[in-house]
Amino acid sequence: MRKPKIPEAAIKRLPVYLRVLEETASADIRIISSAELADKTGFSPEQIRKDLAYFGAFGTRGVGYDTMLLSRRIARILGLHQGVKAALVGAGHLGYALARYSISRHKDVTITAIFDNDPSKLGTSIMDVPIQPIANLVDVVKAQGIKIGILTVPASEAQGIAEMLQAGGVEAILNFAPAKLRLGEAVFVQNIDLTIELQSLAYYTSASEETLHAE
Amino acid sequence: MRKPKIPEAAIKRLPVYLRVLEETASADIRIISSAELADKTGFSPEQIRKDLAYFGAFGTRGVGYDTMLLSRRIARILGLHQGVKAALVGAGHLGYALARYSISRHKDVTITAIFDNDPSKLGTSIMDVPIQPIANLVDVVKAQGIKIGILTVPASEAQGIAEMLQAGGVEAILNFAPAKLRLGEAVFVQNIDLTIELQSLAYYTSASEETLHAE
Repeated sequence: MRKPKIPEAAIKRLPVYLRVLEETASADIRIISSAELADKTGFSPEQIRKDLAYFGAFGTRGVGYDTMLLSRRIARILGLHQGVKAALVGAGHLGYALARYSISRHKDVTITAIFDNDPSKLGTSIMDVPIQPIANLVDVVKAQGIKIGILTVPASEAQGIAEMLQAGGVEAILNFAPAKLRLGEAVFVQNIDLTIELQSLAYYTSASEETLHAE
Repeated sequence: MRKPKIPEAAIKRLPVYLRVLEETASADIRIISSAELADKTGFSPEQIRKDLAYFGAFGTRGVGYDTMLLSRRIARILGLHQGVKAALVGAGHLGYALARYSISRHKDVTITAIFDNDPSKLGTSIMDVPIQPIANLVDVVKAQGIKIGILTVPASEAQGIAEMLQAGGVEAILNFAPAKLRLGEAVFVQNIDLTIELQSLAYYTSASEETLHAE
């Protein structure tokens, strides 16, 4: 990682602040207090002040944060001010959902290339982005300057495709495949494993052993 | 929350341990060391020993953990030993992907009911689970004893449907809608916001401001 100073958990909160700040700014509200930010994001005012202080945004005591200035600042910190291109690999239902969502909604992170090897999908497109064979991946990613890869492929294919993404210059991967990628420090990998999300959720239901801590 | 003693981050790691332990056990390997668990999960041996010690699984020093016993124990802690029923609300592409994946692969958390109000979807089914109108939600969730809800609906509908899930007896919700649910302490909510995942990923690319910490 190049920038280890802001904790990963704080980075994850920045887009949440950004969303609220942009909504507030576009409603022509110039100033927001940390208490209001807390109410709208669910994070505590202390957490918010601490997070924003990481990059020198302290707000004005007793007044609050300038919504427009702070949203622009967060966008720059995340790298969203100049737009970031992403490649999607795997055009199944999950990939399709991500592509449609990303292409239509995000101006900041946009899926500009989609890859799949299913012959029935090649030649078709999602929201005008054509689905190309995976053999083209390295060249296309390089040519387009794509920095983010999104993996929605089976676990058995994930490592090989992640290496292709890295070879093409991708610097961060969102991995939905239930497989641990081994790429070294140069590529940041965020795993989202839907099985694990569902299984860990079960702990918070009455199906879980109630007597666990009484043992 | 009923069981606050194990940190949320540790609960998220339990299904990862479970997967490796089950794979190892089904390959007829009786014992696994914390070093091997570390290699296969990506967590440190210290982290693993600490997590497993939360529920009294200390392994045998210099030998390791009994794969079969430990996987059964983790399944019980998560509540997966008896199977947990989930309801999916929103049968769009994301919902469809989740339903197909969950119904086919998980014996422990299974989507047994699917709801959507799209007339073109009503009367159809995903993997033999019929898509029903949302008006049926509370009754069906109650009747089936469903404990987990999965929300893949637009943000504007999320709160209302979450309240219906709660009224039906759901205890934990996996929320993909980009909306903050307000349900009180009785329901555990895990948010997965794909926009936020993508936006925070941009931070780890060269699109992000390199000079941030030099300011």
